Amino acid sequence: MYSIDLNCDLGESFGSWKMGLDKQIIPLITSANIACGFHASDPDVMAETVMIAKKANIAIGAHPGYPDLQGFGRRFMDLTPKEVKNCIIYQLGALSAFATVSGIKLQHVKPHGALYNVAGKDYDVALAIAEGIYSFDSSLILLGLSGSKMLKAADEVGLKNVKEVFADRAYEEDGSLVSRKKEGAVITDEKIAVQRVIRMIKDGAVTAITGKNIPIRADSVCVHGDNQKALTFVKTIRKAFEEENIRIQPFGSR
Amino acid sequence: MYSIDLNCDLGESFGSWKMGLDKQIIPLITSANIACGFHASDPDVMAETVMIAKKANIAIGAHPGYPDLQGFGRRFMDLTPKEVKNCIIYQLGALSAFATVSGIKLQHVKPHGALYNVAGKDYDVALAIAEGIYSFDSSLILLGLSGSKMLKAADEVGLKNVKEVFADRAYEEDGSLVSRKKEGAVITDEKIAVQRVIRMIKDGAVTAITGKNIPIRADSVCVHGDNQKALTFVKTIRKAFEEENIRIQPFGSR
Amino acid sequence: MYSIDLNCDLGESFGSWKMGLDKQIIPLITSANIACGFHASDPDVMAETVMIAKKANIAIGAHPGYPDLQGFGRRFMDLTPKEVKNCIIYQLGALSAFATVSGIKLQHVKPHGALYNVAGKDYDVALAIAEGIYSFDSSLILLGLSGSKMLKAADEVGLKNVKEVFADRAYEEDGSLVSRKKEGAVITDEKIAVQRVIRMIKDGAVTAITGKNIPIRADSVCVHGDNQKALTFVKTIRKAFEEENIRIQPFGSR
Amino acid sequence: MYSIDLNCDLGESFGSWKMGLDKQIIPLITSANIACGFHASDPDVMAETVMIAKKANIAIGAHPGYPDLQGFGRRFMDLTPKEVKNCIIYQLGALSAFATVSGIKLQHVKPHGALYNVAGKDYDVALAIAEGIYSFDSSLILLGLSGSKMLKAADEVGLKNVKEVFADRAYEEDGSLVSRKKEGAVITDEKIAVQRVIRMIKDGAVTAITGKNIPIRADSVCVHGDNQKALTFVKTIRKAFEEENIRIQPFGSR
Repeated sequence: MYSIDLNCDLGESFGSWKMGLDKQIIPLITSANIACGFHASDPDVMAETVMIAKKANIAIGAHPGYPDLQGFGRRFMDLTPKEVKNCIIYQLGALSAFATVSGIKLQHVKPHGALYNVAGKDYDVALAIAEGIYSFDSSLILLGLSGSKMLKAADEVGLKNVKEVFADRAYEEDGSLVSRKKEGAVITDEKIAVQRVIRMIKDGAVTAITGKNIPIRADSVCVHGDNQKALTFVKTIRKAFEEENIRIQPFGSR
Repeated sequence: MYSIDLNCDLGESFGSWKMGLDKQIIPLITSANIACGFHASDPDVMAETVMIAKKANIAIGAHPGYPDLQGFGRRFMDLTPKEVKNCIIYQLGALSAFATVSGIKLQHVKPHGALYNVAGKDYDVALAIAEGIYSFDSSLILLGLSGSKMLKAADEVGLKNVKEVFADRAYEEDGSLVSRKKEGAVITDEKIAVQRVIRMIKDGAVTAITGKNIPIRADSVCVHGDNQKALTFVKTIRKAFEEENIRIQPFGSR
Repeated sequence: MYSIDLNCDLGESFGSWKMGLDKQIIPLITSANIACGFHASDPDVMAETVMIAKKANIAIGAHPGYPDLQGFGRRFMDLTPKEVKNCIIYQLGALSAFATVSGIKLQHVKPHGALYNVAGKDYDVALAIAEGIYSFDSSLILLGLSGSKMLKAADEVGLKNVKEVFADRAYEEDGSLVSRKKEGAVITDEKIAVQRVIRMIKDGAVTAITGKNIPIRADSVCVHGDNQKALTFVKTIRKAFEEENIRIQPFGSR
Repeated sequence: MYSIDLNCDLGESFGSWKMGLDKQIIPLITSANIACGFHASDPDVMAETVMIAKKANIAIGAHPGYPDLQGFGRRFMDLTPKEVKNCIIYQLGALSAFATVSGIKLQHVKPHGALYNVAGKDYDVALAIAEGIYSFDSSLILLGLSGSKMLKAADEVGLKNVKEVFADRAYEEDGSLVSRKKEGAVITDEKIAVQRVIRMIKDGAVTAITGKNIPIRADSVCVHGDNQKALTFVKTIRKAFEEENIRIQPFGSR
């Protein structure tokens, strides 16, 4: 039987500013990526988000980013690999403390935004991330773009890792995401998006933007919880998985 | 035989800004209070400071403060007890991660600056700190002002705690420090300062600013590593302890 | 004929986080208090907010606060009067630059949150604020709590100032606001709130929480633009003013 | 008679952290580039630095950088041109306010660190900076790398600009600075450094790292005030200029 994880970025509020429909998306996913205070969140938001996830009994992971609140971690910052490694350790420790206090454990780590993108292409940064995670807790699982350098670095370090795919994004022939600046980067037809993901899970393949079929492995699908439309799409994809006999479960439990 | 700990605030550099003679003071002390990034320090400074302390084989502790880099955590901020607790957990986790990566464990926690002062007088804040520490790691030791509400809160929570005294500060009759705004708050004569500390250790007493003798218990003496004069004083006090047969050792090892 | 100003805090978004229905509230008010980046806002939000206010042809003012994004400037910070003064000058300059670039001028300054509250009671802080504003631009108008020390300090410094009242808040006999921690602090009945404001404007009086009538002067009423209910209330109060022949206009134009 | 300006980055302390021998370097230079709180400095440091410069009667300019205190503005951040423009306006306004309060005017603007480097090569960023400055105050002078795109953008916008040269850095054939990562990037022999600058001023030429002579124009020489060695070098270069009949004066006064 096929199985898949649904992951979503959560705990992205900051101080008086609210973001995301966390309470509504949590029952629909299996793995929560929780912001750690560098690009979003703060100690109070982290404490609350970990508690909500615990009550819903879903798996949690750290979602570390660049130290850039104003830019929400979406702007590339030219940190050295050593600086990246220390940023990762700091953020893992901070989120991990709230997990400890709540009596649960972190399942995984998924770098955020620009750091995720850089780590997919820059092997030195990818290695710094993998080493940072492994040195803190070698049982953590890295969640990264299927086929990217981030996962290669994890393999090199001996860090468990799982492959993330996107339902709503087009792929290049080399398995990388089509840049949002290019036309066709985003799949807007929900039916097509669902069919693509099912094919990734069952056949290990996807049609690249060039029309060529390429191999791809899917352990986890990234979904969003920003608005009602996103929530509806998650319900749609869950129903489709059920009909296709694809079990939804956190990757850490396999 | 009498024994005493010497503690010092360390790792207070930030980015390109250097502060403190860390490498020179470390061999002279037994417990290092390491800043956690809220009032001073950053992930790189924390990584390096923990490594230096480890190599010198001294005990380390977290030195959490208010989130106020510009004010160096010395300006009171009106956080709720809940906000204080989450700030403590966040900072403990972050520093703890660098200890884990370095293969060592935290011995203690000492709140910094304005937070230290508030926690000495405001029981709700003191309790929030003690609960935050205990919930993260019940084996940690709280280092706080001898006779203060901070230690009372630790007792209430069941958190181990040790009593800090100051060689260069005058005391009120109730055991609190004389405010720096009052005349005579700082003991400038080094000989007198040394004699006062020895008396605190051996006799459990000190002469308050009013002239009255009051009881005081000393587990650890706070020393500074900001400049050459401070370093010289630490050497002086170490020599005096040796002559008085007072063993210098971290409180966690007793 | 009576006249009154309606002021509202605006430009409180930060980075990816949105706050306030700025575009909807702007046509309903006469003076906008724009955040300056310390407790809310950022350079991009400031640029946009000033442009929107300019297009709507309403008066703008700076809304400086404590340097505490996470706490939204609502947590007291123990800054020295000198630090407060420099924080004010810095924020005035920053917002003023966007006004200059847009070809308009600042009308006023209204301190935000905890700084507003402290300046109402602590004369040294009030004086620091008044001096900071006056030294930067002596033609600016300070908008502060009617009857507070903030306005007294402005008088002392020679700074023009206008008196702010609140429709939805109860008053103590001395003219200060009843603390939100006390019962009855907030007037929830909209009709009563409107009647109270009209009486303040026309009769220069209000009934304190004790039942006693006290004198109060109203130059500007603070309204909110956070949600639909707040917008509806502003429309209600505008209609009531019209019926009472109270002209709505910025205080700077009188 | 030849004339030259000596500029130096100042006001780079932050909170409790001190940096630079500002008081000692100020009497030796003619133009001070003052940090604006994004990569270094804070409102108190800015107030003090402007006052010191005023008393010494030297020209002052804004030294805006990326919003990255920990990285001291030396790490590239991928801001959009619009974000750069607003960051510039914000920082210009803030520093300008302290100048206004002190009764003096800004002479110039020199971007800092990574922003300076990017603006030398990326025309869109350069244009955003030039437009930001011009829109705030069209009489300001941009100080940028001689021959760089930053100055080209200033010309395009109609912004006055002057050409900066470095005594201690090697040049490529195209007039750009040799990357610090390459061997020979820094001229360590002080005599050679002085001779190179004199040739730039008098002959408008310098020998590139390849051995080829290239044209270069020098309006201002960048010097440092970080330590005693730097101060000594400034004294050396001043003496050499005197012997060569090169007048030292701020570019804004020509």
